[in-house]
Amino acid sequence: MNLTVIGLGLIGGSAALVLREKGMATHVVGVDASEQHAAKALQLRIVDEVLPLHEAVAQADLVLVAVPVDSCIGVLQQVLDACQQQVVMDMGSTKAAMIEALRQHPQRGRFVAAHPMWGTEFSGPEAATVHAYKGKAAIVCNADESDSDAVQLAEQALAAMGMHIVHMQADAHDVHTAYISHISHITSFALANTVLEKEREENAIFELASAGFESTVRLAKSNPDMWVPIFRQNRDNVLDVLNEHISQLRKFKACLEKENWDYLRELIEQANNIKRILK
Amino acid sequence: MNLTVIGLGLIGGSAALVLREKGMATHVVGVDASEQHAAKALQLRIVDEVLPLHEAVAQADLVLVAVPVDSCIGVLQQVLDACQQQVVMDMGSTKAAMIEALRQHPQRGRFVAAHPMWGTEFSGPEAATVHAYKGKAAIVCNADESDSDAVQLAEQALAAMGMHIVHMQADAHDVHTAYISHISHITSFALANTVLEKEREENAIFELASAGFESTVRLAKSNPDMWVPIFRQNRDNVLDVLNEHISQLRKFKACLEKENWDYLRELIEQANNIKRILK
Repeated sequence: MNLTVIGLGLIGGSAALVLREKGMATHVVGVDASEQHAAKALQLRIVDEVLPLHEAVAQADLVLVAVPVDSCIGVLQQVLDACQQQVVMDMGSTKAAMIEALRQHPQRGRFVAAHPMWGTEFSGPEAATVHAYKGKAAIVCNADESDSDAVQLAEQALAAMGMHIVHMQADAHDVHTAYISHISHITSFALANTVLEKEREENAIFELASAGFESTVRLAKSNPDMWVPIFRQNRDNVLDVLNEHISQLRKFKACLEKENWDYLRELIEQANNIKRILK
Repeated sequence: MNLTVIGLGLIGGSAALVLREKGMATHVVGVDASEQHAAKALQLRIVDEVLPLHEAVAQADLVLVAVPVDSCIGVLQQVLDACQQQVVMDMGSTKAAMIEALRQHPQRGRFVAAHPMWGTEFSGPEAATVHAYKGKAAIVCNADESDSDAVQLAEQALAAMGMHIVHMQADAHDVHTAYISHISHITSFALANTVLEKEREENAIFELASAGFESTVRLAKSNPDMWVPIFRQNRDNVLDVLNEHISQLRKFKACLEKENWDYLRELIEQANNIKRILK
């Protein structure tokens, strides 16, 4: 299969590496707005060649679009304009706006909207890894609006990457991901800023930081080029969750202020229920 | 060296395993308020025998106290009352109240106040592991109030466990740990409650949870028996940090409400500075 990947960063680069490793992609063409990224991806052998978008789409069986969600709709429109029988799949973290924008495109059927629930706090082609995606969920949205052969090839690629498929409507996807991904990034950014604000003696933090701190603050290294567009596109859902989160934090604050240790214990026991969900 | 460990959970049990593995502890006596924990620790060969506190202290060279911080002061008083030339070290997460309470004890010099910056979200003897502590910092507080031979043996044990020593006054310790450990737990508990509150369809969370979500919410599994006493003893510092954290979150909220994407980008770039500290 000829694979074209548009956007050669962590997500697209890793997908190229994994699909080649699994034998599904025999030739990989890369497209990137940044010449530097494209050169790096070639050098790291993530792609076999780099071509302009139109040519890269023309020779593909499957086109993966893995660019920040603010550029994604425009890129998908260009790709679908150039599309014959290719299958086009995106990998973005927000879905409703995209699905809406592409609904009337004459080639809508060739497009499959997907969101693999994998990522790290790193970015760029150097961050791409063949160990990506395995064991995670891949959400496929509004599959009924895509041609069935397109869904089949797209899901075959996601499965080859080691993921199990979850079907969902775009609106539900955007609500769920606000809860189980987007809010985690906001709390982590805010936690980093809390600590950086007060702890000017950076060596003290560095020496004392425990694994617990590292794990809650790890996501604060994430790239604004990716995350500002996500928060922008999923603004309403993220705001709902953020309001809920602030009000949960206020409960902890009230316990401390009123020295209500019984209620504090209750809140922690309630939080412990996450064990039922995350082993 | 004869080692006595009081409190055979994650922290004390792991210390026993590591100090035996490193050859520093040749005989390990355990003490635990819970008969079940004591029996489990014997069965798992974390300790060689279980004895009542007074006898266990009598035959020790080093006594490690690893009980929740609300019981810790009382236990340390009993141990110091029974103490001749033994060295006594605690491993608790708060320090100022303890140092204050023991200041006038006639055997104060035998006591070394320590806080190894290691832990996991699990608890009990089953959670103890020989892979604990390595590469982390161990904070030793108010070492000038301890006998120098006591500090020497205590630090030798911490170093044998693979830790590097950081000296600090108790008040500074409690401020720093509020920032780099205690607040992480509150945000994680609150995040778990946020998600559990709204996401009643638990299967949806389970299937979609990404590594990012797992890492920010992992600490929410932590045991209230350990954490309520920590928040209680470090209430003022934790409240300061929590207020700061809520106001940082409000900045993100304001950006979303006002659709101020430039400022949102600035906040994220500022958070990215955590990279300088955590590699």
